[in-house]
Amino acid sequence: MAMEKIWFGGDYNPDQWDEKTVLEDMRLFKKAHINLVTLPVFSWAKLEPREGEYDFGWLDKLMDLFAQNGLGVNLATPTVAQPAWMSAKYPEVLPVDIAGRRRNHGMRVMFCYNSPVYRERAAAIAGALAKRYAGHPALKLWHVANEYGTYCYCPICRSKFILWLKNRYGTLEKLNERWYTSFWGRTLTDWEEINLPSELNDDYRFNPTIQLDYMRFVTDSTADCFTNEYDAIRRFSDKPIQTNMSGYIKKLDQFVMAARMDVVGWDNYPSPLHDKSLVALKHDIMRGLKGGQSFLLAEQSPNQQNWQPYNRLKRPGEVRMLTYQALAHGADSCLFFQLRQSRAGQEKFHGAVVGVSGREDTRVFKEMTQLGAELEKLSPVLPGMRSKADVGMLFDWNNWWALENSSGPNRDIDYLDCVNQYYRAFYEKNIAVDVLSCKSSFEGYRVIVLPMLYMFRGDLKDRLEAYVKGGGTLIATAMSGLVDENDQLPAQDYPAYLRDVLGLRIEETDALLKDRENAIELDGKEYSCRLVCDVVHTEGAKTLGRFTGEFYAGSPAVTLNEYGRGRAYYVASQPEQALLSHLIDGLGLKPVLDYTGEMEITRRENGERIVFFALNHGKSDAEVRLGGGEFTNLLTGERVRGEATVKPNDVGVFTARKED
Amino acid sequence: MAMEKIWFGGDYNPDQWDEKTVLEDMRLFKKAHINLVTLPVFSWAKLEPREGEYDFGWLDKLMDLFAQNGLGVNLATPTVAQPAWMSAKYPEVLPVDIAGRRRNHGMRVMFCYNSPVYRERAAAIAGALAKRYAGHPALKLWHVANEYGTYCYCPICRSKFILWLKNRYGTLEKLNERWYTSFWGRTLTDWEEINLPSELNDDYRFNPTIQLDYMRFVTDSTADCFTNEYDAIRRFSDKPIQTNMSGYIKKLDQFVMAARMDVVGWDNYPSPLHDKSLVALKHDIMRGLKGGQSFLLAEQSPNQQNWQPYNRLKRPGEVRMLTYQALAHGADSCLFFQLRQSRAGQEKFHGAVVGVSGREDTRVFKEMTQLGAELEKLSPVLPGMRSKADVGMLFDWNNWWALENSSGPNRDIDYLDCVNQYYRAFYEKNIAVDVLSCKSSFEGYRVIVLPMLYMFRGDLKDRLEAYVKGGGTLIATAMSGLVDENDQLPAQDYPAYLRDVLGLRIEETDALLKDRENAIELDGKEYSCRLVCDVVHTEGAKTLGRFTGEFYAGSPAVTLNEYGRGRAYYVASQPEQALLSHLIDGLGLKPVLDYTGEMEITRRENGERIVFFALNHGKSDAEVRLGGGEFTNLLTGERVRGEATVKPNDVGVFTARKED
Amino acid sequence: MAMEKIWFGGDYNPDQWDEKTVLEDMRLFKKAHINLVTLPVFSWAKLEPREGEYDFGWLDKLMDLFAQNGLGVNLATPTVAQPAWMSAKYPEVLPVDIAGRRRNHGMRVMFCYNSPVYRERAAAIAGALAKRYAGHPALKLWHVANEYGTYCYCPICRSKFILWLKNRYGTLEKLNERWYTSFWGRTLTDWEEINLPSELNDDYRFNPTIQLDYMRFVTDSTADCFTNEYDAIRRFSDKPIQTNMSGYIKKLDQFVMAARMDVVGWDNYPSPLHDKSLVALKHDIMRGLKGGQSFLLAEQSPNQQNWQPYNRLKRPGEVRMLTYQALAHGADSCLFFQLRQSRAGQEKFHGAVVGVSGREDTRVFKEMTQLGAELEKLSPVLPGMRSKADVGMLFDWNNWWALENSSGPNRDIDYLDCVNQYYRAFYEKNIAVDVLSCKSSFEGYRVIVLPMLYMFRGDLKDRLEAYVKGGGTLIATAMSGLVDENDQLPAQDYPAYLRDVLGLRIEETDALLKDRENAIELDGKEYSCRLVCDVVHTEGAKTLGRFTGEFYAGSPAVTLNEYGRGRAYYVASQPEQALLSHLIDGLGLKPVLDYTGEMEITRRENGERIVFFALNHGKSDAEVRLGGGEFTNLLTGERVRGEATVKPNDVGVFTARKED
Repeated sequence: MAMEKIWFGGDYNPDQWDEKTVLEDMRLFKKAHINLVTLPVFSWAKLEPREGEYDFGWLDKLMDLFAQNGLGVNLATPTVAQPAWMSAKYPEVLPVDIAGRRRNHGMRVMFCYNSPVYRERAAAIAGALAKRYAGHPALKLWHVANEYGTYCYCPICRSKFILWLKNRYGTLEKLNERWYTSFWGRTLTDWEEINLPSELNDDYRFNPTIQLDYMRFVTDSTADCFTNEYDAIRRFSDKPIQTNMSGYIKKLDQFVMAARMDVVGWDNYPSPLHDKSLVALKHDIMRGLKGGQSFLLAEQSPNQQNWQPYNRLKRPGEVRMLTYQALAHGADSCLFFQLRQSRAGQEKFHGAVVGVSGREDTRVFKEMTQLGAELEKLSPVLPGMRSKADVGMLFDWNNWWALENSSGPNRDIDYLDCVNQYYRAFYEKNIAVDVLSCKSSFEGYRVIVLPMLYMFRGDLKDRLEAYVKGGGTLIATAMSGLVDENDQLPAQDYPAYLRDVLGLRIEETDALLKDRENAIELDGKEYSCRLVCDVVHTEGAKTLGRFTGEFYAGSPAVTLNEYGRGRAYYVASQPEQALLSHLIDGLGLKPVLDYTGEMEITRRENGERIVFFALNHGKSDAEVRLGGGEFTNLLTGERVRGEATVKPNDVGVFTARKED
Repeated sequence: MAMEKIWFGGDYNPDQWDEKTVLEDMRLFKKAHINLVTLPVFSWAKLEPREGEYDFGWLDKLMDLFAQNGLGVNLATPTVAQPAWMSAKYPEVLPVDIAGRRRNHGMRVMFCYNSPVYRERAAAIAGALAKRYAGHPALKLWHVANEYGTYCYCPICRSKFILWLKNRYGTLEKLNERWYTSFWGRTLTDWEEINLPSELNDDYRFNPTIQLDYMRFVTDSTADCFTNEYDAIRRFSDKPIQTNMSGYIKKLDQFVMAARMDVVGWDNYPSPLHDKSLVALKHDIMRGLKGGQSFLLAEQSPNQQNWQPYNRLKRPGEVRMLTYQALAHGADSCLFFQLRQSRAGQEKFHGAVVGVSGREDTRVFKEMTQLGAELEKLSPVLPGMRSKADVGMLFDWNNWWALENSSGPNRDIDYLDCVNQYYRAFYEKNIAVDVLSCKSSFEGYRVIVLPMLYMFRGDLKDRLEAYVKGGGTLIATAMSGLVDENDQLPAQDYPAYLRDVLGLRIEETDALLKDRENAIELDGKEYSCRLVCDVVHTEGAKTLGRFTGEFYAGSPAVTLNEYGRGRAYYVASQPEQALLSHLIDGLGLKPVLDYTGEMEITRRENGERIVFFALNHGKSDAEVRLGGGEFTNLLTGERVRGEATVKPNDVGVFTARKED
Repeated sequence: MAMEKIWFGGDYNPDQWDEKTVLEDMRLFKKAHINLVTLPVFSWAKLEPREGEYDFGWLDKLMDLFAQNGLGVNLATPTVAQPAWMSAKYPEVLPVDIAGRRRNHGMRVMFCYNSPVYRERAAAIAGALAKRYAGHPALKLWHVANEYGTYCYCPICRSKFILWLKNRYGTLEKLNERWYTSFWGRTLTDWEEINLPSELNDDYRFNPTIQLDYMRFVTDSTADCFTNEYDAIRRFSDKPIQTNMSGYIKKLDQFVMAARMDVVGWDNYPSPLHDKSLVALKHDIMRGLKGGQSFLLAEQSPNQQNWQPYNRLKRPGEVRMLTYQALAHGADSCLFFQLRQSRAGQEKFHGAVVGVSGREDTRVFKEMTQLGAELEKLSPVLPGMRSKADVGMLFDWNNWWALENSSGPNRDIDYLDCVNQYYRAFYEKNIAVDVLSCKSSFEGYRVIVLPMLYMFRGDLKDRLEAYVKGGGTLIATAMSGLVDENDQLPAQDYPAYLRDVLGLRIEETDALLKDRENAIELDGKEYSCRLVCDVVHTEGAKTLGRFTGEFYAGSPAVTLNEYGRGRAYYVASQPEQALLSHLIDGLGLKPVLDYTGEMEITRRENGERIVFFALNHGKSDAEVRLGGGEFTNLLTGERVRGEATVKPNDVGVFTARKED
């Protein structure tokens, strides 16, 4: 479901303002080229002040006003925050926390996602909204709830978890076997003996198999909670339906969530301390959730946030560069939290397009206006365009959970950090990467990377072996290929799922103490490494690099196995970035385009056109070689042949018709 | 209510000792010039062993013994620790904590300050004590409970909070508006939907408006709890009534508390790591609570504490210097915790005048004896004397709460730290400062300072503008003048409440990352600054200093606005101490007296006499210029004209009759 | 009860494996010289799948199989983890945690040790196992439960605690006096007013006397819980009965626990960051628990653990050296967790003799095999041998609790750290040390050391004085001899219990701020010291060393008192290691043997033979002088006279017949 244009706008809360201010906003939004508003995210109590009694009058007026002003609406179901009367009348709507405490009303996203009452009332209001506004000219998009992510431990959830387990395992015997309950004497003799893994039993920390299934269950329940509203809306409206996910949070498997949505929405709030590659990776993950489909940047901030510890102002031009980075990696929209600043409440110091002063002569408003004007130039070309990559990188929430729940060998193991390290090695060379799930096809990829893919599920082993046999290149890392979907080690040599394709076995794995390092000698240079070091015995693989320290000095640290027509690399530790950079140089991959300087370059395309993005993150002019044919810089309108120059802190968006 | 003399003595627990020891104490106290004992703070169970049955016999004997030995009594109601039988019989007396857990009996200050049973029993015993001892010759002063500060989350408190809100706001509509419940969908449709802000809803962290009102409510309730006993005592006795407050704790608005007391009492336990200016500031805050009235130093330690992480011994002479500092800043007493060391319990390692050994040849006992003798010399002159200052500094608990509850822009914002920084700039020049509330008159002050006065309540804006127009000088800082009493930003430019008087507006505020700095160039020198930097547009103000770094380099960092006949300075960041010192030099203020060396100098006076305190904190002799007339050094009896020398670690107390 | 041989083997969980694997294990265990398996530690649910219905069939088969394969069994009662059905049926079996929350089923060691239902079911299965297997040829040893250490706060425990107090104190008056309830108004008027010290009253942190008795009560209750099973087993079997204790954990007084066991068992999991002396100390503590009786090393890891933050592999030879260190210090066995690695669960990455791969060509398996072969050579000689020491060091759990519960003077006071520092001073000179309880006889010891023996119980004062009068040497440290068994300071000079023997009094104790130091000048050299510094007045003692800093510079820091025919040293601070080393040099003590290099040397013996252990921890060859007579190196069979050489990372075990 491609968007009809690049949406530019974001969260708007007119119920916090008087009519005069709303009218003034219409003028300001037009001036800033804003074309979409998201609302009414937090207005359930206003829309349904008493159970079953709806008050849509104020929203009708707004919808009409938006339509008159050429504004589209990303219509939100207000279900992220149930009305206080609901919590008072039906306390079972409130979640029980991991400490076993029933919450009382407060915050937001504070409901039990399995509560029948919540589900019923949420479907009712979602349906009522859909029925009322399905045909409204302003309606462009649906937005369900907001940033799901609660974990509930109430009796209803426990009952549903037991049902979910019955459905998954069938018999208690099977459950006992898959949960390996013989360890620590946890054998179950009745389904009713099952408890949720919480602080009341410490299973959330000390029973990785139960915790893993509970996290799957919460994901499935949350997805059902979304679908509950999706279905209610779809009865009346055929517009795309999404929910905005909180970045790539660990709590919910976003592959499962995304499968329920028409289009992926996500909120991008990078820390100023993070490397640009991390933001790029997040975008690529989001693009990967639906197999490369372009996504909705549902929120970013036009300036500082309020909830980070230190809320640095975004620097001049920073929002523009972040926005182009999003578009470059697959976004078809650019929505902001928020259009007008709240005068009070927890987020009153959060950046906004229009501040409490209402001024239009601010740095932020002027930057937004420029950006809005530019996006109008890209809008006819970009939406729905996809990208192609030679490199596929596996990313898996189940693996994330299992790896980090696991006790040992090193508590500083950090899945995202490892994924980002490998990603960054490609990113810094402008070699495009697709993020894949464990079920994705590997066809067409020259290299598949498995950063710490500890858990192997389904037929992944067979498919990876077939991929390499068929000529593909595999890169695997320490802590990969060890356990099955229930976090069980097969009674085999490590790594059971990769031993054949890698041509080696691991006898034991050393954990380096806090902040200690070992080193790897590779092609005549020494690189530091950290976290863990495998003691590897090659069984057919060739040793490329060796550890230089500890009792296993001289043993293999980087290996290469010729397997069928392909090759499989293994990196038996977590090396410094430079080693990965060097390793990748040997793979024969090409950047998206040749270039000079510190550029971030991507390519998007559809059947007819190509678009290249070239973001100059450096401090001096840089050049990009566009190759044959004539390109148009969509931002300037200039025609370009061959090389194009991009200024520092600037971007070039070059398009050409495909030559086929 | 001035004290009849300088009280010297403190907490005494004769119920922990046998009769012989108590008699020995009479001898020791006399030797040390002790003239007041505080008791029976923790004896409720001993005084009322069963509900309604009082046993005053043992106390009668003690009161008589004290009177015979010339000891006054600071008679305490024992209500800080209800008897165990009360908690067992009336569990509702026990508080519910922020985690929602009903406490069981233990600790101290562990009762619900709103409990009707507690209130009734507390008033009963306070009244019984007052009735019995009102006419006793030993009675000098009343001491209610001890260091209030519990927060309770029980159903009774919730009901009372709802009543308090009804009383404050009248209607739910008004409450919804003032709590800005449209944000995050918190609209209330019934008063019974209101919950206390606790861990069960996280409103204590994420709902600044509710939390603010709850803190006000706890203050009012605690003040009522005090008044409950105050009224019971006053029926029978006209002696001054106070309670000792825990330093200047954040939890309770001590302006509200102090309004209920006849005289302010407080406990001074400085950390050895703190600067002397912080202790001086605390004294000045306490003096400011009742508009300059002298206060009771209700507790300090004669030596180390036990409950700090590292309980350093007080150095030789340190207690004496701390005591003179208290007197210099407005104390009329000098009470200690404790006169005789406990042999067991949580505080057995706390310093005491007499240790468990009962010795009188100790360093501590000898220092106390010297101090007691000295205080007798000051006693006829000092009590009730007041001070005068050219500088007023606003200090406000509501502001403290709101500022630090606020999310963003920088979590390291620390109200006290900022107040202390400005205070210290004056302190280091021995320019006297009065601490004022938001309601204090500004008449007679040449300079008013507003360190991070984020919240403006009542008519403060108008009064400040009038003050400057009339010729006053105002100094305001970053994070000031932003919100109203409900933590709401007016729909105006920042800072809404100071924009006019400062002649500027703030477009946005940058938060510096942890431990990062920017710098300000002012009068040819560069000073570091931290925390936040405002991007300021002057609107009439003159730019004195400019930021040197970040994208707003060159923009105003220190400004001066001529407003009416006065001047208003703005400091748009938190600069290093030296900048403030330099800024103050331009204000034309004078020290209390001219002096050399590292001296702390204050002046107290009444209609007839002046007293100068000169504490030498340096390592060599220092001089103070007393000006015309003849002075007497009260400690040595020497007559002094012109300059007087004070030795290191020593103090001079110089008095003269007023010349008018 | 001496073991019949050196047991070599450990935890085995055949219920996690199929029959074929178990048969393969028989072959592997034989190859590795394994002679004992511990089981079925976690199999309660398998042995008693429904209440009262036992299924011993599978265990019968295993027991027979072990017997056929020459394997002894350390037969475990499975009571560390009650079956899920028991928690479901009898929720009172589950403990209430310190936060007041009833746990639900999970983890292990998660039962109330006072639960009547638990006790009844535990005794029943223990008795059933004993009855069934008492005569089985494989049975060698009993193992009750596993690593006790839960603290429970349930109503049953509260009732039992009240009974325990009635029994200890007789009357409430006595209890009020011993708990010093006059402090902070805690007077009790009814036994039912007593609560457990928990987070609900903060007494666990702020009421040291209650907390102390509660910790004693938990120890007694846990010991009773052990005895409950002990008695059930003893009815049928006369084999030794033990439980494995978690190192020297603070929670349980292991002198009390050990008194109930036939032989002490403990689990040794040293951190790679700890000094070797700490491991040696722990062994010596364990040997001291039953007055020098040899103990069972119940668990150590054949390789890395999984539950440490950073699970370093054990280096080649490291397990062997740790094993010889254990034997050198009094172990008669060497058991491992675990023989075969679990395929899943919390500890799947824990080291094992046989990994999931089942390989026998691993480093670990080969090292274990070598060790097993060696131990067979020592086995005829070593079991039951004891050691002799000139130095006795007091170690006391009650003291540990009281010292660290105490508020002040310095929160960094760390009992174990101080004990280890003094121990290490002797250890580094290879001077043997016995760890003694407060009730141990001091006869035969030339030196008695009291590191931070804060609490004096029973007749310790009299016995120590008699010891020194009779010619003994005492070394006492700061923070010693201060309080009685209820943490009460006598109304006397500090340190009440040591003043006479030390010939001094302490006027006050300075706490150094975090990371600050003072120094001591002793015999012309300056040594740093930390934590606390006493201000000492000698009363007969001679001053050996003096503080060099702070206001008490020049006052005594190290003193020596001639007392009767003996001498008593006092060290008034916590000095650097070198000072202690120097001090000890003056005591005229001898190492076990003369030696060169970095050796750890101990001696064990029985009526007939002597064994010397010499472990070379250095990096080059070292020599040990065995003295007269001919010795045999048990590991190599070589005969040695005079000097013997030990290689780096190697050990010599030299034996000779006694010459009497």
